[in-house]
Amino acid sequence: MKILIIGASGTIGREITYELERNHEIIRAGRNGADVQVDNTSAESIRNMYEKVGKVDAVVNASGGANFASVSELTPELNEKGIESKLKGQINLVLLGMDYVNDGGSFTLTTGVMMDDPIPMGASAAMANGGVKAFIKSASIEMPRGIRINSVSPNIVEESWERIGHLFAGFNPVRADKVARAFVKSVEGRQTGQNYEVY
Amino acid sequence: MKILIIGASGTIGREITYELERNHEIIRAGRNGADVQVDNTSAESIRNMYEKVGKVDAVVNASGGANFASVSELTPELNEKGIESKLKGQINLVLLGMDYVNDGGSFTLTTGVMMDDPIPMGASAAMANGGVKAFIKSASIEMPRGIRINSVSPNIVEESWERIGHLFAGFNPVRADKVARAFVKSVEGRQTGQNYEVY
Repeated sequence: MKILIIGASGTIGREITYELERNHEIIRAGRNGADVQVDNTSAESIRNMYEKVGKVDAVVNASGGANFASVSELTPELNEKGIESKLKGQINLVLLGMDYVNDGGSFTLTTGVMMDDPIPMGASAAMANGGVKAFIKSASIEMPRGIRINSVSPNIVEESWERIGHLFAGFNPVRADKVARAFVKSVEGRQTGQNYEVY
Repeated sequence: MKILIIGASGTIGREITYELERNHEIIRAGRNGADVQVDNTSAESIRNMYEKVGKVDAVVNASGGANFASVSELTPELNEKGIESKLKGQINLVLLGMDYVNDGGSFTLTTGVMMDDPIPMGASAAMANGGVKAFIKSASIEMPRGIRINSVSPNIVEESWERIGHLFAGFNPVRADKVARAFVKSVEGRQTGQNYEVY
């Protein structure tokens, strides 16, 4: 398969790439240093990426961010990053990429544990995760040409524990390669409309 | 209690108002013909509404829309209504209203059945519903001054069946007054972080 991975150089993106490149042709996309540059907060940039890449069998997204702030300090402005990047950035990869995915291909997006097991300062990220999960469940029933759509919901990963583990009191981090296996399941399996929890 | 109801003149908003006005002081907000005018897609308009209304004990929202379109026809532009109105419109009511809600007060927002039981053309609305639900679950753990936050997820209501029932094949519509009772539970009860499903 020809697989486009957005966010291929991130902590989880690297592991996804490592797992998939054994058996597939990989195109790496990211903000810089990748095969193709893309800023997922810009519909124009997403359109340009797809035009450059052309037809693929699978689109995998491991990019997208949100601001961490307590709900008392969260403003509409601070919430915009989660809206533009983690939510719309991912959904626009689907809406704008539909015509570039071959029959029977797939989209796999990223959600996260905070929507199911809330942490302080995580409301904006949780909002984006919940929006993506619900979009996928709904979109899956009417995707054209046998195209599938799933998401992977990672727990905090061991590789990020030193940097942000203090926000995840009492969580048991998982290894990023375990998370990557769920992306492989989505790409090479046959299920659709799923949110694979790797908790 | 002093209760601000946004979208008080809608199908469900009218029933919520009817249920709550027996025992509480109600301020109706809406696009027109209400006690206070508000456009929930504008943060400025929401700010003005709260300034006019002042302190309240509960904020109830029954407003917010999204475009219905199949996922093949949904564009980033068509998806914006769901983002701006049903998702951000509701979340900004919380972020901008926090200082106007008295200690121990509450916010109650509206989600909907399509996130749990998908229908064709419902992906944009489902996205918004899922985002609101996850935001509430997460925000509830750190709301200040004992303020609670919940949502109500209505099924298609009998009163809307003639107009949009054709989109909900095989659903069993519920009465709007049954949905309104879940809002009463949120406002007068003590739970927080809940999404009351009225299916």
